[in-house]
Amino acid sequence: MSSNTADLNPPPRILLGAGPANVHPRVYQAMMAPILGHLDPDFLHIMDETKSLMRAVFRTQNEETIAVSGTGSAGMEAAVANLIEPGERVVVCVAGFFGDRIAEMASRYGGEVVRVEAEWGRIIEAEAVEAALKAAGRTKLVAIVHSETSTGVHQPLEDIVRLAHEHDALVMVDTVTSLGGCEVAVDDWGLDACHSASQKCLGCPPGTAPLTFSPRAAAALRSRETKVRSWYLDMTLLDNYWGGKRAYHHTAPMTMVYALREGLRLVLEEGLEARISRHLRNGQALWAGLGAMGLTLHAQEEYRLPLITTVRIPEGIEDLKLRRALLYDHNIEIAGGLGILAGKIWRIGLMGVSSSAENVLAVLQALEQELSAQGFRLEKGAGVAVADRVLSEG
Amino acid sequence: MSSNTADLNPPPRILLGAGPANVHPRVYQAMMAPILGHLDPDFLHIMDETKSLMRAVFRTQNEETIAVSGTGSAGMEAAVANLIEPGERVVVCVAGFFGDRIAEMASRYGGEVVRVEAEWGRIIEAEAVEAALKAAGRTKLVAIVHSETSTGVHQPLEDIVRLAHEHDALVMVDTVTSLGGCEVAVDDWGLDACHSASQKCLGCPPGTAPLTFSPRAAAALRSRETKVRSWYLDMTLLDNYWGGKRAYHHTAPMTMVYALREGLRLVLEEGLEARISRHLRNGQALWAGLGAMGLTLHAQEEYRLPLITTVRIPEGIEDLKLRRALLYDHNIEIAGGLGILAGKIWRIGLMGVSSSAENVLAVLQALEQELSAQGFRLEKGAGVAVADRVLSEG
Repeated sequence: MSSNTADLNPPPRILLGAGPANVHPRVYQAMMAPILGHLDPDFLHIMDETKSLMRAVFRTQNEETIAVSGTGSAGMEAAVANLIEPGERVVVCVAGFFGDRIAEMASRYGGEVVRVEAEWGRIIEAEAVEAALKAAGRTKLVAIVHSETSTGVHQPLEDIVRLAHEHDALVMVDTVTSLGGCEVAVDDWGLDACHSASQKCLGCPPGTAPLTFSPRAAAALRSRETKVRSWYLDMTLLDNYWGGKRAYHHTAPMTMVYALREGLRLVLEEGLEARISRHLRNGQALWAGLGAMGLTLHAQEEYRLPLITTVRIPEGIEDLKLRRALLYDHNIEIAGGLGILAGKIWRIGLMGVSSSAENVLAVLQALEQELSAQGFRLEKGAGVAVADRVLSEG
Repeated sequence: MSSNTADLNPPPRILLGAGPANVHPRVYQAMMAPILGHLDPDFLHIMDETKSLMRAVFRTQNEETIAVSGTGSAGMEAAVANLIEPGERVVVCVAGFFGDRIAEMASRYGGEVVRVEAEWGRIIEAEAVEAALKAAGRTKLVAIVHSETSTGVHQPLEDIVRLAHEHDALVMVDTVTSLGGCEVAVDDWGLDACHSASQKCLGCPPGTAPLTFSPRAAAALRSRETKVRSWYLDMTLLDNYWGGKRAYHHTAPMTMVYALREGLRLVLEEGLEARISRHLRNGQALWAGLGAMGLTLHAQEEYRLPLITTVRIPEGIEDLKLRRALLYDHNIEIAGGLGILAGKIWRIGLMGVSSSAENVLAVLQALEQELSAQGFRLEKGAGVAVADRVLSEG
């Protein structure tokens, strides 16, 4: 390989997978802005604005609010790394791939992990968390995923947060998929650590992870007895850069900060309520359409996440063949299942820019065609018609 | 803060600090390419191309060559995290801020750190490394910075690599500043781990960190007895995504990969030799010009790095006032000193796009004006004239 590669020319896909979602044109435009030095007063001002925008979208007054210079998983790891010291007990709720990932990280950072499990597709019940907390004894942290991208489940948090706090534990919540698409209210809900990612409902490319720590979590940092094992993700050092001291830590990825700032502005311009309604309406239309096509949704009905719809692959249908056909013949990406759900479900994302009435109808139309091509029997046009009715009622 | 922030409009600076450097227009253009899914075959192909381009610029055949989804410090931490297990001995060469950073990371990952120190501004002598290896006993890793951004020193590696291998230790080398601007030959030099960053001589925004592991380093990964403490930076998992298995790990930051690919193409189009000559010539012109102005260079003369020139702040001159004047009145960023050199030196970067004859003359001209304004006595026009002569001879 030398320099004789071709000019970059990726196809403009309709991204309805599990993320990244499509990027808003204004975000692309923001990324054209010239790079500044990482300590240039003009850049520090942009960081301040981005921090304020993050706080507005997280609905928090938390001083410790930053964008981690990495993807959503780096945000998750930052929360885990900073809040756990070796030997401390962590109750991790696992009802999908990303709960499992938190447990894995917590174990690598020396935590004594207690897993509270539920079937992949169902919520974690507060009673199970309560039982674990009672059995476990002194617990530093309860960690849970708000929007389990692998199952399409929308986890209720209120009771679990209350129980954790009653047991004097901090609460860490993964809102990678939900922030900017579902209600997330860090302060009202009493969350101690909350992280997200740029490439889902915030409408940016992947590369930054908003992260916020409550005063209680910040106090836990200050009373650590050991250094955070990861230097790159050490919140105290990061906050010295994002906060008042402006001490050099690493070189912030300006372009990604520009993108995040613009994505957050777009969220607030649309308005959190209007945006959440849009995501819900489009999700409901998709569910109705899929149902009318004779497909079965996977997630527990009362707790479906409108951002990621999980649908069972009908018997006899070839997973990869269908997804390839969607990608190459319809230019639409949907995602397959992860972990134990691989080959069993599809995941259809409607997040940020990608959550539109046009995309709901397009993916239903494409699915109908490709399912029919594989011999699946359905009533032609029923899915689109039902979805269209839900959309026009909304 | 709500959505009433202004449109993004940062000033187009001449970036002659310690990085980021200015970004090539073709790199900005590449970042406009549409986002793809992280497992889209078209994106996997782009990753393959980027990997091949990284190998060409690193001058390596190493199979384990990836771009870490973070900045240069994440690349550094990835090398440390993967190569050190708790209790293993690491000899870290510290003659500046970034050597010190490696030592700090190695200690956080449980390494038994032996520091080999030199004055900040001088190279690490091979004899000192030899003595440390003999005294230390069994050593897993010798870590050293090739291009110490804090001191402007260009560290020779040949003897140190040989000694490390004689003592059966792996060698990790930081080429954050040198890759694409100075000679770096991973295979010929026998380096076992080598990391860099996108925002210096590769001409991209910060956000990705090229990283390569030799077969010997890869074998060390496979024989680890403990898991890598950082999940996000676990090379085995990362290489499963970048390599043949294509297993999902994290969502790659496509835009940053697009940027890196274009930056690397530009390096190879110019040609490594021609590019290295350009950086050297411009650095030499700057050194000559600064000398003619009566300024003293800080780095050990035979080992000056043409990419980052360190110059002592003359007595009576106010550091911050001068740098602010350069920034606001000349639109030029240079960097101050780091750590123990803060307030004592300036650092002038000539990297990637920023390394041009025009920028050499512009910064000399601006420095002359602002030094004079603070009462520093110099021969008007001498710096520019001397630099110009070197440039026209080159």
